[in-house]
Amino acid sequence: MSLPFADRLASAVRSKHSALVVGLDPQFAKLPVEIRERATAHHADQREAAAAAIKEFDAAVIEEVAPFAAAVKPQIAYYERWGPPGLAAYEHAIEKAHAAGLLVIGDIKRGDIGPTAEAYASAHLGSGTTAERDQFADAITVNPYFGTDGLQPFLNAVREKDAGLFVLVRTSNASAGELQDLQALGQPVHEHVAARVVAWGHELTGSCGYSSVGAVVGATAPRELARLRECMPRTWFLIPGVGAQGGTAADVAPAFDSDGLGALVNSSRGIIFAYGSPAASEWRRSIREAARRLRDELRTAAPQAAS
Amino acid sequence: MSLPFADRLASAVRSKHSALVVGLDPQFAKLPVEIRERATAHHADQREAAAAAIKEFDAAVIEEVAPFAAAVKPQIAYYERWGPPGLAAYEHAIEKAHAAGLLVIGDIKRGDIGPTAEAYASAHLGSGTTAERDQFADAITVNPYFGTDGLQPFLNAVREKDAGLFVLVRTSNASAGELQDLQALGQPVHEHVAARVVAWGHELTGSCGYSSVGAVVGATAPRELARLRECMPRTWFLIPGVGAQGGTAADVAPAFDSDGLGALVNSSRGIIFAYGSPAASEWRRSIREAARRLRDELRTAAPQAAS
Repeated sequence: MSLPFADRLASAVRSKHSALVVGLDPQFAKLPVEIRERATAHHADQREAAAAAIKEFDAAVIEEVAPFAAAVKPQIAYYERWGPPGLAAYEHAIEKAHAAGLLVIGDIKRGDIGPTAEAYASAHLGSGTTAERDQFADAITVNPYFGTDGLQPFLNAVREKDAGLFVLVRTSNASAGELQDLQALGQPVHEHVAARVVAWGHELTGSCGYSSVGAVVGATAPRELARLRECMPRTWFLIPGVGAQGGTAADVAPAFDSDGLGALVNSSRGIIFAYGSPAASEWRRSIREAARRLRDELRTAAPQAAS
Repeated sequence: MSLPFADRLASAVRSKHSALVVGLDPQFAKLPVEIRERATAHHADQREAAAAAIKEFDAAVIEEVAPFAAAVKPQIAYYERWGPPGLAAYEHAIEKAHAAGLLVIGDIKRGDIGPTAEAYASAHLGSGTTAERDQFADAITVNPYFGTDGLQPFLNAVREKDAGLFVLVRTSNASAGELQDLQALGQPVHEHVAARVVAWGHELTGSCGYSSVGAVVGATAPRELARLRECMPRTWFLIPGVGAQGGTAADVAPAFDSDGLGALVNSSRGIIFAYGSPAASEWRRSIREAARRLRDELRTAAPQAAS
């Protein structure tokens, strides 16, 4: 990798003409029956079986969505759930996605202080002592609660690895406002975080005009979304909450610039479980069509998107 | 397990006459040379070698500190750093600590929304589908940024598993105040979080008088510590920042009640790397003495501690 993450992302969005990110949230109980049965038949250990099923499912999802998505976002909780074999499946998903030409955003939401944050950064963005590159995410999500010195090790890794970050600013869940919307010195806490994100990312702006330090901003708060775009004009937004959580493609329109850049829109369950029943036989087609449909809706929502 | 975590903790503190928690932060480069060399000789794969060294080191640390500590607190970042073999070493540490009669606080600082938080809770506190119990922590640390619905799955797990939580309230790092000390509606953000912690933990109060929903409050902010004790009178405090980060045993005195309960004080590097140079031959003794010394200092700081 030689280009900053921000520029690799701009290039992926342009070449795919797509702002779509497909979230990999492989909840075992929702996987197609045929996959679960095969895995269970081959692995006596429950965690090994779950990990095997997830690997097969992810490989299929990645193959189906690759033409329509700029990136995938594996949510590590659904892998960590199954212990060491699950973590191996997480790495497998990253490798498969890279092989399919997709960028990978590791949704890990880690956050801690100095040396501990450094260990997380090495774990997920790679370190000097590790030769392999494909097993690491291109970018990760991080939690801002610790402030600047908690972020610094991640920022160092971004610089050294041409990687990216998406800092939680305003999340998409119903209770998000309890802490994030508290009014402090005339503005909500999440706008204070937004100002930090701009400062943290300033030095890491790519030639596309956006920084490699992005922000997570939920689609379920459209008013905050527009306002946060004003606060963070050169920040890539990663927008969850479309689909299963109730946000629509139209809700996210204010996040895009006039070239159709600046925002990624994630859908997880709405795409990977589009088939509804785990007994559905045409599950791969359902996934593919759901990805195509949301990509098209996003093209309409951001009509100027570079093509 | 049949007793609430809060009561198991009170019982451990009373029987050991110790508020000490030893943090397991096994940074590979700081481990004793003999251990690293043995692991490297036996494992060609770098991650396997690191995990093997960590397992051996943790087993030794646990054996040395068990007489003096109420609990250990493995910091998962230093395990996750080494991928799936590292995560296996994390589980190994939990099992070893349980076998030595120690409670385990998994320092994972996870935080996310609904189904994802549920996956984290299952991963780290166990789920109905997993028979083994020893591989799971008794309690975990969590991040409050998402608010109540992000906490709910963890609270459910606490109830079902008689487990515990420590919610980040005021952390010990230098930049902690950037977000946590913002003044909102007349009080700092961390006091708003403290009020939530009290509400979240109210129903989970044990017969010891404390809740199984605790709070992380850094020793490096003694003024905030005293004030937060007022805000959260029935909340177990987990206090990092003593030792390497500059806090002293005297700084944490206001956190204890007149029975010597209510607070756990963590030291990580100050104990597990007390030997200084990785070439030190008497490293086990240095660890043991450092644990004994801090336990004694904490007894003096909280002189009424039940014995």
